[in-house]
Amino acid sequence: MSAAMKTKEIAIGIDIGGTNTVFGFIDKRGKCLAEGSVRTAEFLEFHDFIKALWESIEKVAATIKTKIDIKGIGIGAPNGNFYNGTIEFAPNLSWKGIIPVAKEFKKLSRLPVVLTNDANAAAMGEMMYGGAKRLKDFIVITLGTGLGSGIVVNGNVLYGHDGFAGEIGHVIVTPNGRKCGCGRRGCLETYASATGIKRTVLKLLSESGEDSMLNGHTIKSLSAKMIDEAAFKGDPIAIEAFDYTGKVLGEALANSIAYTSPKAIFLFGGLAQAGKLIFKPTKKHMEKSLLNIYKKKVKLLPSSLKGAHAAVLGASALVWKELL
Amino acid sequence: MSAAMKTKEIAIGIDIGGTNTVFGFIDKRGKCLAEGSVRTAEFLEFHDFIKALWESIEKVAATIKTKIDIKGIGIGAPNGNFYNGTIEFAPNLSWKGIIPVAKEFKKLSRLPVVLTNDANAAAMGEMMYGGAKRLKDFIVITLGTGLGSGIVVNGNVLYGHDGFAGEIGHVIVTPNGRKCGCGRRGCLETYASATGIKRTVLKLLSESGEDSMLNGHTIKSLSAKMIDEAAFKGDPIAIEAFDYTGKVLGEALANSIAYTSPKAIFLFGGLAQAGKLIFKPTKKHMEKSLLNIYKKKVKLLPSSLKGAHAAVLGASALVWKELL
Repeated sequence: MSAAMKTKEIAIGIDIGGTNTVFGFIDKRGKCLAEGSVRTAEFLEFHDFIKALWESIEKVAATIKTKIDIKGIGIGAPNGNFYNGTIEFAPNLSWKGIIPVAKEFKKLSRLPVVLTNDANAAAMGEMMYGGAKRLKDFIVITLGTGLGSGIVVNGNVLYGHDGFAGEIGHVIVTPNGRKCGCGRRGCLETYASATGIKRTVLKLLSESGEDSMLNGHTIKSLSAKMIDEAAFKGDPIAIEAFDYTGKVLGEALANSIAYTSPKAIFLFGGLAQAGKLIFKPTKKHMEKSLLNIYKKKVKLLPSSLKGAHAAVLGASALVWKELL
Repeated sequence: MSAAMKTKEIAIGIDIGGTNTVFGFIDKRGKCLAEGSVRTAEFLEFHDFIKALWESIEKVAATIKTKIDIKGIGIGAPNGNFYNGTIEFAPNLSWKGIIPVAKEFKKLSRLPVVLTNDANAAAMGEMMYGGAKRLKDFIVITLGTGLGSGIVVNGNVLYGHDGFAGEIGHVIVTPNGRKCGCGRRGCLETYASATGIKRTVLKLLSESGEDSMLNGHTIKSLSAKMIDEAAFKGDPIAIEAFDYTGKVLGEALANSIAYTSPKAIFLFGGLAQAGKLIFKPTKKHMEKSLLNIYKKKVKLLPSSLKGAHAAVLGASALVWKELL
């Protein structure tokens, strides 16, 4: 074997989050050779952020023993626009307006760079490394602070005319419902997300006289994990909160199916880790609300991209799927 | 010039409706060389229907003076399934269950046959001959007895994993709302369609003490055209019915945009002919309900496929777009 043949083709996957930005050196089979992170929230200026990020990437690259050939950089980011390579008006980042992320990163790294929103990246990852390997039509729903969605149609992520398709979290499910960060009311993500279920718990506590281990909490002191644990221990408020969240989500997914008729819907992210607690009511209400022609056809599945690498894997898949 | 060069390439477009089935011999530029029709409702057996239809097509073909080369047959039909070439469980046709239309027609005609639902055919027509010639992402909404939708994504009609994508008429917009023919409640088409606006008129008449030229009507005696005319003459109930229909439709379209982010939405069919009466409130409520990133980006337009040929044109476009 020649030395050249041992060179490993690598994609760098970067997941930009409001708090942390995680990156990894991923081979085509999804193996992570090395990884690192920087604290997004520390950088008020975008320029300082990418400089620090690129330095960190170079430092980690130097630790890799294998000879690598970096084919490109894939970035998943909140409000990421695939067509423009920009982050546009992301409410959870300190950099305001339109940030030309791909362009700046290309200059710095001299590598091809592709960017999309985090939910689209998750869909890419699911298609390349996860449960959607053989699927051409599916949806990934990310249940984090908000609700993101990546819609895949005939094997391609649906971007729409402007790169902003797939905002299922901002479908209005209850006219004049809960106030949303987007300035409107009743968006799906105000109910079905980590924040949404916390709001539901507070509402149920306010209405119910029942004893609950969640009593006395505020939105800040409460976490989705605590609700999960309380439900596991049989707390009625926590269980009811999951049922209600599943009802709203299931009904919304039944409507979503009438748009793109997917073969499967994957739930990804923190709230999806609650397993049966969230899957059972969601599945039940989804099936119940479906138009006849769709009934018993659409699988509701947990994402099979697990753990800390999931979002980075998705971002790296962009390089193989969209760039090469 | 040789005689062979004068031969005109033709697609036969067929629009199967609950009452009539219309067909035409259409050239690639959308010109109709000849046309005909049979009465769908007369045939209780599907076999009798296609025999009569094919005979009628052959009879009309014989009257065409130009030498023609028929490249294929495109069919738009209610509940048409593109993948299977079938009509499946169409509530407005007398043939029940799954009808293998394309297969039977292929046998009879010895021509390539492609079939899809009527709204997808309208979208094809809009893309090939109408206002969507330069668009890759748009939606066509057909406002007839029900509400149909054809969604185009990146230049292709969205079919989904089973051929049944694009049932926006059966998105539930009001939980526990009006009873729908599909067996559920609150579907968009129970509000936004010719039938929907008639139901709205009856509701408004029942609630209002106002004088209206629509007073005394029943669902059967009322027509969308009569409501149109009454509104034109200033009838308050008729005007309010259009406003309400536009509100429900506009809000639903704002949600639809969050799925596929189209550049334009075309309204097609009887109710769309009411012009400003329906467009103005629909546009207003659509814009008002949109997520910020979509505002002022999406055009709401009347279909530019006009008159009796519109659906036939769409069906013929299938031959050029999907078959060849």
